[in-house]
Amino acid sequence: MAFLRLAALKALHGTSHTLLLRRGPASAVRAFSATMSPPSRAVVHELFGPPDAVTKVTELPPVEIKENDVCVKMLAAPINPSDINRIQGKYPVKPQLPAVGGYEGVGEVHSLGSAVRGLSPGDLVIPSPPSSGTWQTYVVKEESAWHKIDRGTPVEYAATITVNPLTALRMLGDFVDLKPGDAIVQNGATSMVGQCIVQLARIRGIHSINVIRDSALSDEVKEKLKRLGADKVYTETQLDLKKVKEFLANIPEPALGFNCIGGHSATTVLAFLGQGGTMVTYGGMSKLPVTVSTSSFIFKDLSLRGFWLQKWLGSNKAEECRVMLDHLLGLVREGKLTYEMERVPFDDFQTALDKSLGKLGGGQRKQVIIF
Amino acid sequence: MAFLRLAALKALHGTSHTLLLRRGPASAVRAFSATMSPPSRAVVHELFGPPDAVTKVTELPPVEIKENDVCVKMLAAPINPSDINRIQGKYPVKPQLPAVGGYEGVGEVHSLGSAVRGLSPGDLVIPSPPSSGTWQTYVVKEESAWHKIDRGTPVEYAATITVNPLTALRMLGDFVDLKPGDAIVQNGATSMVGQCIVQLARIRGIHSINVIRDSALSDEVKEKLKRLGADKVYTETQLDLKKVKEFLANIPEPALGFNCIGGHSATTVLAFLGQGGTMVTYGGMSKLPVTVSTSSFIFKDLSLRGFWLQKWLGSNKAEECRVMLDHLLGLVREGKLTYEMERVPFDDFQTALDKSLGKLGGGQRKQVIIF
Repeated sequence: MAFLRLAALKALHGTSHTLLLRRGPASAVRAFSATMSPPSRAVVHELFGPPDAVTKVTELPPVEIKENDVCVKMLAAPINPSDINRIQGKYPVKPQLPAVGGYEGVGEVHSLGSAVRGLSPGDLVIPSPPSSGTWQTYVVKEESAWHKIDRGTPVEYAATITVNPLTALRMLGDFVDLKPGDAIVQNGATSMVGQCIVQLARIRGIHSINVIRDSALSDEVKEKLKRLGADKVYTETQLDLKKVKEFLANIPEPALGFNCIGGHSATTVLAFLGQGGTMVTYGGMSKLPVTVSTSSFIFKDLSLRGFWLQKWLGSNKAEECRVMLDHLLGLVREGKLTYEMERVPFDDFQTALDKSLGKLGGGQRKQVIIF
Repeated sequence: MAFLRLAALKALHGTSHTLLLRRGPASAVRAFSATMSPPSRAVVHELFGPPDAVTKVTELPPVEIKENDVCVKMLAAPINPSDINRIQGKYPVKPQLPAVGGYEGVGEVHSLGSAVRGLSPGDLVIPSPPSSGTWQTYVVKEESAWHKIDRGTPVEYAATITVNPLTALRMLGDFVDLKPGDAIVQNGATSMVGQCIVQLARIRGIHSINVIRDSALSDEVKEKLKRLGADKVYTETQLDLKKVKEFLANIPEPALGFNCIGGHSATTVLAFLGQGGTMVTYGGMSKLPVTVSTSSFIFKDLSLRGFWLQKWLGSNKAEECRVMLDHLLGLVREGKLTYEMERVPFDDFQTALDKSLGKLGGGQRKQVIIF
């Protein structure tokens, strides 16, 4: 388990890394009769802080593979904004330090504990529910922590199917009973969740109104989203909030809206909602709060809610989660669910991190580390 | 009916009021065989605008009492903030002009149409559900519009039981399943709704945390609210929102909050709420919007809702409404529900209106017109 590796690392904290690198064989000797994992190259942080300052790629020693454990050779894992927040220490659930980054990913079964019956070497698996520590080359967890998926799944999709597409699927289902012909509105439509919402809504016959930020590439982005199935795509400055209904054209007033930006962009989503509508906040990229008029609550009867996948996953939804992931991966294999990503070799982790932090300009595609 | 009186008034618009005053007997002659109401002294406005500028007390002509109608001599009616908003034209449901002000009240049955079986002269009745036009001495409506109440009810409570106490009762019941020992938090605790929430919560064994504005009378107000059953009463500046849990002392984190102020005061309510809590906005006295952080939605899982009694009443709740009003009036007669009011003779309507508009200083008690 990643925790065991890190316990070893912690014990060595303050000593030289030369010693750390020697730890592998030493442990193997100590745990003489046990099966051991290979050593693991991992993105580790020993402090909370700016990810580009506090993380380093380090080799972690082999760990014991207990009888119910499965050792997985990781193939791919994305850098999500929530991974960044965890390293910054801005997440409400803080990992114990030192910690390995990453929360989702995909790998191939490498070796098994003696009591494992449901998986075989070579199987493609994802940690489900997801858990911390996927940014490393080998992960050891109990068999029950792994979910076997179809080998025909592209690894970059398998690696990214949980955090963002599952959020999109749940948010479309959990708040408002939408029927074909209904509409939703969202900001941040170019985010991975946003792209998934457009496509998952379209599959159900639900219209989508999409708000994007103004940029030199706005027209290109609009075309891309429309190819995914977006009904309407507007830039923020294009909209006159006092006449927002005119921008609906023949689409019904949305009963459900999604906000991952905050500030004026959230106000835009609220303006589009019809009487009794619900806005779900799942991100706050502008770092600005959501501001709502009293009359929106009283006379327009709007509801404002939030969604956090980690909380949803924590409420005994493990089996339900796997069924939904299989559904989403099926859509991927059928070509019905697609989103933009950039595959990056693990050796280029630092560049991928810089792109994810916005240091190389906005509008970067989702970075997916290939191990 | 008030509408018929006003149709007559409208027909005369632009002619002299001398003619209007002669209209009573003329109508009686025209509707020769019908039973007619007495003429009615009413607070009428022919335009939307500042209530102290657009309203005037006028005599309206008698109207016909049809076979299913009941003519009620009004005894009392309050001036609520929503009455002010209606006259200002700031309410989403605008009355047809000219209009008589007022939305709730109480009266005594004066005379009956020939087919009325359920009411008798002298019965104490309230319009239920409430409806526009209670600021006048005689109101004619169909029998089904009136709800007979216990004669032992003080008229100022009967006149005010619907708009504010019923709002408090519904808001305590409709959003969160509260159990004895749970807690609520509210701002504007000195409002009539606020006072009712304190008492109705206490009756159910629910703790209340109350936030009031800072004033020279804060200590006196705190004592009054505590006598009504408030567990905690704080002024806004007394609270440190970063340490808000310390102000809870031994009371559980509230699952439900009520906001009738907006701005920083709403933020205070949000700060007190526990994980997964709900804040219901039913007013916006500061005219400032509600501002909410992204993390409140995502990590604290707060829900923000609104409540509007008029919408609730509009959804076929007539019978349910009467059962609840009887319940509330029973509590009044048992001395378990009390709130501050000032009885004002109809002749002093203008002063009562000025007090309600805040022209004579803040902190005025609820003005109840006695006809």
